[in-house]
Amino acid sequence: MKTRKKNAENIKQTNNKIKQEKQPKKLKINNKQKNILNPSQTTQKKENKKKLKIRFLGGVGEIGKNMTAIEYGKDIIVIDAGLTFPTDSMPGVDLVIPDVSYLTENQNKIRGIVITHGHEDHIGGLPYIMKEIQAPVFGTKLTLTLIENKLKEQKINEISLNCIKAGNSIKLGCFDIEFINVNHSIAGAVGLSITTPVGVIFHSGDFKIDFTPVNGETMDLPRISEIGKKGVLLMMADSTNIEISGTTISESVVKDTLSHVFSDNASRRLIIATFASNVHRLQQILDLAVEYKRKVAFSGRSMINIAEAASKIGELNIPNGLIIDIEKIKNYKDEQVLIISTGTQGEPMSALTRMASGEFNKVVIGNNDTVVISASVIPGNEKMIYGVINNLYRLGAEVIYESLEPIHASGHACQDELKMLHSLVNPKFFIPVHGEYRHLKKHARLAESLGMKNTNILIADIGDTVELTQSTMSFGEKFHAGSRFVDGIGIDEADSFVLRDRRHLSEDGLVVVVVSVNEASSTLNSLEIIGKGLVFSEDMVSETKNCVINALDRIDLKKVCDEAELNNVIRRSVKNYIFKATKKNPMILPVVMVV
Amino acid sequence: MKTRKKNAENIKQTNNKIKQEKQPKKLKINNKQKNILNPSQTTQKKENKKKLKIRFLGGVGEIGKNMTAIEYGKDIIVIDAGLTFPTDSMPGVDLVIPDVSYLTENQNKIRGIVITHGHEDHIGGLPYIMKEIQAPVFGTKLTLTLIENKLKEQKINEISLNCIKAGNSIKLGCFDIEFINVNHSIAGAVGLSITTPVGVIFHSGDFKIDFTPVNGETMDLPRISEIGKKGVLLMMADSTNIEISGTTISESVVKDTLSHVFSDNASRRLIIATFASNVHRLQQILDLAVEYKRKVAFSGRSMINIAEAASKIGELNIPNGLIIDIEKIKNYKDEQVLIISTGTQGEPMSALTRMASGEFNKVVIGNNDTVVISASVIPGNEKMIYGVINNLYRLGAEVIYESLEPIHASGHACQDELKMLHSLVNPKFFIPVHGEYRHLKKHARLAESLGMKNTNILIADIGDTVELTQSTMSFGEKFHAGSRFVDGIGIDEADSFVLRDRRHLSEDGLVVVVVSVNEASSTLNSLEIIGKGLVFSEDMVSETKNCVINALDRIDLKKVCDEAELNNVIRRSVKNYIFKATKKNPMILPVVMVV
Repeated sequence: MKTRKKNAENIKQTNNKIKQEKQPKKLKINNKQKNILNPSQTTQKKENKKKLKIRFLGGVGEIGKNMTAIEYGKDIIVIDAGLTFPTDSMPGVDLVIPDVSYLTENQNKIRGIVITHGHEDHIGGLPYIMKEIQAPVFGTKLTLTLIENKLKEQKINEISLNCIKAGNSIKLGCFDIEFINVNHSIAGAVGLSITTPVGVIFHSGDFKIDFTPVNGETMDLPRISEIGKKGVLLMMADSTNIEISGTTISESVVKDTLSHVFSDNASRRLIIATFASNVHRLQQILDLAVEYKRKVAFSGRSMINIAEAASKIGELNIPNGLIIDIEKIKNYKDEQVLIISTGTQGEPMSALTRMASGEFNKVVIGNNDTVVISASVIPGNEKMIYGVINNLYRLGAEVIYESLEPIHASGHACQDELKMLHSLVNPKFFIPVHGEYRHLKKHARLAESLGMKNTNILIADIGDTVELTQSTMSFGEKFHAGSRFVDGIGIDEADSFVLRDRRHLSEDGLVVVVVSVNEASSTLNSLEIIGKGLVFSEDMVSETKNCVINALDRIDLKKVCDEAELNNVIRRSVKNYIFKATKKNPMILPVVMVV
Repeated sequence: MKTRKKNAENIKQTNNKIKQEKQPKKLKINNKQKNILNPSQTTQKKENKKKLKIRFLGGVGEIGKNMTAIEYGKDIIVIDAGLTFPTDSMPGVDLVIPDVSYLTENQNKIRGIVITHGHEDHIGGLPYIMKEIQAPVFGTKLTLTLIENKLKEQKINEISLNCIKAGNSIKLGCFDIEFINVNHSIAGAVGLSITTPVGVIFHSGDFKIDFTPVNGETMDLPRISEIGKKGVLLMMADSTNIEISGTTISESVVKDTLSHVFSDNASRRLIIATFASNVHRLQQILDLAVEYKRKVAFSGRSMINIAEAASKIGELNIPNGLIIDIEKIKNYKDEQVLIISTGTQGEPMSALTRMASGEFNKVVIGNNDTVVISASVIPGNEKMIYGVINNLYRLGAEVIYESLEPIHASGHACQDELKMLHSLVNPKFFIPVHGEYRHLKKHARLAESLGMKNTNILIADIGDTVELTQSTMSFGEKFHAGSRFVDGIGIDEADSFVLRDRRHLSEDGLVVVVVSVNEASSTLNSLEIIGKGLVFSEDMVSETKNCVINALDRIDLKKVCDEAELNNVIRRSVKNYIFKATKKNPMILPVVMVV
């Protein structure tokens, strides 16, 4: 405990130093931008009768790509700009981001993008979206550092990034936004209290209530109570852990478990996989390394980048001489080394996955290794991560993972914490956010169980507009919203037919039928059949050729001048035979060459 | 409780009746077969010095496609013949079954296939494997009924199915096999005590210890103790739930929870999804329907088939007048209806999934429906089943699923039950089975923690042979084993390149480049470019054409007579351009026609 406290102090000091140095440089809002921040100040009074509009671009009915726009008169502010990862039904797609066409059409209204914290589902869309809309971005130090890294990767430079800290307020158009410290599985997470012309909107961001957080900064419940007492018109709050009763364990508990792991494995090499952005977890692990006299090697590009960036801005305290290059671990005994790695979700190219499959020559796993996976499994990743765990065991390692020990703490509030938040904020209206439909539904019920009227709660979908006045909340007109796929270079609409074709190809393969027809004689000149992605024997190729020849024999090629018609004849002729022979329906691609 | 007891009696009576009627008919082992069962009887003594070989064809290092062969001299018996479902890396594959080439090569040795119970991972491979090997199949009544259904679907008739019951013994070659009642999430599950020339092998099958099972027949621990006391050389036991401490809840507990669901939802329509083969669960649900005066409609083909078959053989007691056709539910009030449905895993074509997406016109979900999903989520199915749950909520239904209530009981023993089994059987050697590597490893450790020597435990992989004598256990030579894919019609080797192509096509799509070359003049005649499964604009098609034309311009078509070489020139020419333009690497398929 002493170590942690000391570190917390260290961090605070460093924080302050960097903030003093950096804040003026970061706040590079130029005059032109300043003007756009408050254009409606003068017209504010007469607009009080207008409805405020909350537009959901993402993050409701899903856990991922959070993005909400709040609009009043000529002003829009945007909360978060996340991404989500593709599902199995989107083969080849790299990322999914919100469709922001509503924002591009209303570019002139956008006063700023406010980011609650630096997780992918809150910042990951920015590098793509910022190619389409312009607006200053506001976030805390670590959040902006992570955003900066992302923008650099995409070679985007001209974005105004504005550093705020919990307790700060900013004015964007007719909105006053106060940033409130919350606890989460990343440093620098904030909730928002947004004073609008119709009343106060409280947005929890992603949060948990941690009474013993690693950096000592508990969620600012006193300030939230104060805001609640003054009167909150609408609350939007995190629904991720609504199905779990009680409260989330404190991040500090993880240190106790990890401490046991260090003492129980005193003579073994330790490898801990965790999320790079969870700098508090990283800090605890580094503190334990110091305590147990181990050198630390980072493994995985994002781990190295984020640790470096977080250390630079003072969010991570790395004592001199603690870190060694991964290439140097062979110079130390096993018991002197701790490797901190990416790959908690079994991502195919991650450091841990490659270690487990014996393809990572810098770290060769053996009998004297204990691997700790300090994270929970994100639904859908089970098979991949258990594959990694099985491989690590096969190589002789000891593996400690969540189903065995409490080596991870969730970053999201459970039922009792949510009840606490509802009681303190005590809003008139409520919209649950950050959850699949089942989570939103249950969060709505929790609000009801605390006495809120059912009619004062709305469950929103992407594309919904919620209209607010001082006394009413209702659905307005829907607007154009949805998903866009990042597929290869830049943003593609990656139209649904492309994905449909990919799914078709992956299930059934394809057969290309190339026919060359002699124009002069209108006779079949030559014929090629190629099958890919299906079991297709020589005999079947011959039989398919016969089908095509027979079909073309039956028609008069002179008369069939329409290419589409000829293609259909060919398609039909082979489809039935191939299904009979293979019980597969491959894509059939006829190509007719007239020579 | 009274109801259950009464039903249990009913079932027993019915069982006996059917067994008496059916057993002679089922045991259709003909004379020829009888001879093959015991050919080595005379040579048994001199072979006692030989090693017994256990060959793992499936079910170790995985949960799925269980299949183990036990071989001694000229005799082989096979335990189970399961299937497994394909992973994401096997697009288009329907099923995965064990490669049984070792068995086909040793067909003359096979004395029989012994099935422990009727789950897919124990019987699902039979319809395919029985096309390649011949052997009589032994199993309990429900197991054989389920196998018969499967064989019929595949139009296989000539298999000898031999009905045994717990307590029976059979002799196959040099092996005496005793069937021992165990509890599991399907009726008629048995463990095996196999007396071999080197000693007794105890195989647990899939099991749990249920002291209050639905049919009243507790796992036969007294008989297991007796076998253990006499001395067991080797045990193989279920490792599925090794990571869970304590004991599995009894199936009867589920009835208590479901009973609350019935009373809490007295005025609503009830829909319960469960596994069709879990006839004890089905029985409990039917009993509750009787108690709460609801008519029952089955929904989903496998639910109807299995309920019918189980009822016919007396494993399921369905009172007259209880069942109504699903088409008739509209004639009843909501509170008078219970629908029992398939689809607990969110399978795309299942009844529940179609109800949830509003595509099942026989059951239209609404505000007055309560849907219970009485099953756990099989890892990998999370996204699908949560998708179904979200959709049901969207349609206004109430949904009760496992993360909220104990409405499902696992069929596999947890740590304390496994300890109990180890203590009673008290084997000299141990091989954990039915688990991924991590499960096997932990089960090995549990055995060690109970005092077994580490050197007396082996963790086997598919293709491993374990050699046993009266006093030793060690690995023998590996044999050819692995997976075969059922893909479309019959069994295909579904060679790895087919799957590689499918994965490639699904990620990046393809570009077909058709070139026709004039043979006489050796010049390019015409050129077609077709892109599928990637975003490929008109401009990109033109640019790709230019690439091909330029590349062909640079070579002398007269000299390049080798088609492969020409294909390579074409492939290279477009590959770079397409990657630059799309950041994708589609499959490039050149077709050269010489005309």
